[in-house]
Amino acid sequence: MSRIQQALESQLLRAHSPSAPPRLLAAMRHAVFPGGARIRPQLCLAVARACGDSAPALADSAAVAIELLHCASLVHDDMPAFDDADTRRGQPTVHRLYGEPLALLTGDALIVLAYQALAHGARQSPEHIDRLPGLLQLVCSGTGAPDGIVAGQAWECEPQVELAAYQRAKTGALFVASTCAGALAAGADPAGWRALGECLGEAYQVADDIRDVLMEADQLGKPAGQDATHHRPSAAADLGLGGAMDHFQALMTAAVDSVPEGPARRAMQALVLHEAARLIPPATSERIERERRHPTRVMHRPAVA
Amino acid sequence: MSRIQQALESQLLRAHSPSAPPRLLAAMRHAVFPGGARIRPQLCLAVARACGDSAPALADSAAVAIELLHCASLVHDDMPAFDDADTRRGQPTVHRLYGEPLALLTGDALIVLAYQALAHGARQSPEHIDRLPGLLQLVCSGTGAPDGIVAGQAWECEPQVELAAYQRAKTGALFVASTCAGALAAGADPAGWRALGECLGEAYQVADDIRDVLMEADQLGKPAGQDATHHRPSAAADLGLGGAMDHFQALMTAAVDSVPEGPARRAMQALVLHEAARLIPPATSERIERERRHPTRVMHRPAVA
Repeated sequence: MSRIQQALESQLLRAHSPSAPPRLLAAMRHAVFPGGARIRPQLCLAVARACGDSAPALADSAAVAIELLHCASLVHDDMPAFDDADTRRGQPTVHRLYGEPLALLTGDALIVLAYQALAHGARQSPEHIDRLPGLLQLVCSGTGAPDGIVAGQAWECEPQVELAAYQRAKTGALFVASTCAGALAAGADPAGWRALGECLGEAYQVADDIRDVLMEADQLGKPAGQDATHHRPSAAADLGLGGAMDHFQALMTAAVDSVPEGPARRAMQALVLHEAARLIPPATSERIERERRHPTRVMHRPAVA
Repeated sequence: MSRIQQALESQLLRAHSPSAPPRLLAAMRHAVFPGGARIRPQLCLAVARACGDSAPALADSAAVAIELLHCASLVHDDMPAFDDADTRRGQPTVHRLYGEPLALLTGDALIVLAYQALAHGARQSPEHIDRLPGLLQLVCSGTGAPDGIVAGQAWECEPQVELAAYQRAKTGALFVASTCAGALAAGADPAGWRALGECLGEAYQVADDIRDVLMEADQLGKPAGQDATHHRPSAAADLGLGGAMDHFQALMTAAVDSVPEGPARRAMQALVLHEAARLIPPATSERIERERRHPTRVMHRPAVA
């Protein structure tokens, strides 16, 4: 974790200069620190280590790029045009603190900073320069059109949405980028790590849908009940809480099974299981099980019928 | 010009897929086509040719990346948080046609598509892969923090702004990226081409300030008088129209003088002079001269005193 925080800190400092607008720099920092669980960059580095970590600076830069793109997407998604959220990670959102114009630019600047990280990582690893085009392509695929997180968010602007395609793009794409970029940064074939990213990404979104229904804003660090408020597709709304929980567990099992053979397979599988317990704590899953056996309606927000 | 249009078209098609949200793809296309004068990518390719154009696919990808980043910045700058403009290049702006949420995402997707273009260009030019990190860095520097166009726009969110720093970042940075990336894509040292980008970028911004005062919306293809309306720094407001015109001409002379020695120097200088006449047509400069000798106040918008 400290490897990620340090790499993020170094990359943010590269955007600093007396010639830069100070409020932009402050807003960028606010969007990135203290940060959440940093699950995507952790995943990226875990896969890079599992593949031998032959170019640590390149792996760091991929992890940093992916986390910065995630932070950028949160800044833009929180804006009034989308969620109009007041809080994120227990802090005021960027547009609440710095205004809408600067929030828009903060997201843009973080996207650019992500690619600057890759350029820097490649310069630190000249002997592995051949990995850069592929890394760049993987990070772009996870982010833009046709199937990255920006496209996923754009599905919310369409009259008709298919839940699986929406979730695959909105969350899954950047998880796939995380596992595949981790592998490629270490010189391994990314294809074998794709399924892990897909399963974890979908599981993460399902867990988010469940938490959005079950938890209160003070536990989430952001407004609760947002999916219902914004009439967004949600696994909890679609399948019910019990069904969503079953789906989550199936995805986590698939994630564990998908880890490619190799000396680090066991360690990676343990990490996935650890993450599963963090996403849906045992107390929460037991609560859902109880509710399933003896429905009380207590746990259901009105719009999730 | 057709080389640029074709390269942009190919890059946009790479974002296409039946799995993508159709309105996002339509909004991206609307933001890029038919387009304006394409001055940045033209400049990039002109410099690449002057330097021997040893990797045309790489030069194309740099030109495309820079134009896509420019288009993205226009989409975001036109939004209600900034200019709240109804028209751009004589067409409705993206947020007027597709709504604010999709305009926000369209800008984001175009930024990512720009970097995807560089990844693609590098894959087409594997023998020149060593140029990619530098190109990536140049394009990022022209766009993000501390001194790129996003930072330039962010100066509008600061309580105190220095006109030169603001214009250098807001417009100059992407012109510098254009000349330098053109040189580097062709394997030349970008340093020698920096001054040309700086002078042209500042001249372009001064010309824009003059046109914003002098021309009507139907000639501009976008709302007129925006600098005064939004209390933005403007060379025309700062120096008066005559002073701004003198400044423009001095910058264009400096641009011509800055072109590095080489077999293509004359051709590049002719191109710069041609561009000067396009930016401020002779009839306009004569009008400003007449006004300077016999002030009538006719040409002055109220806020530009």
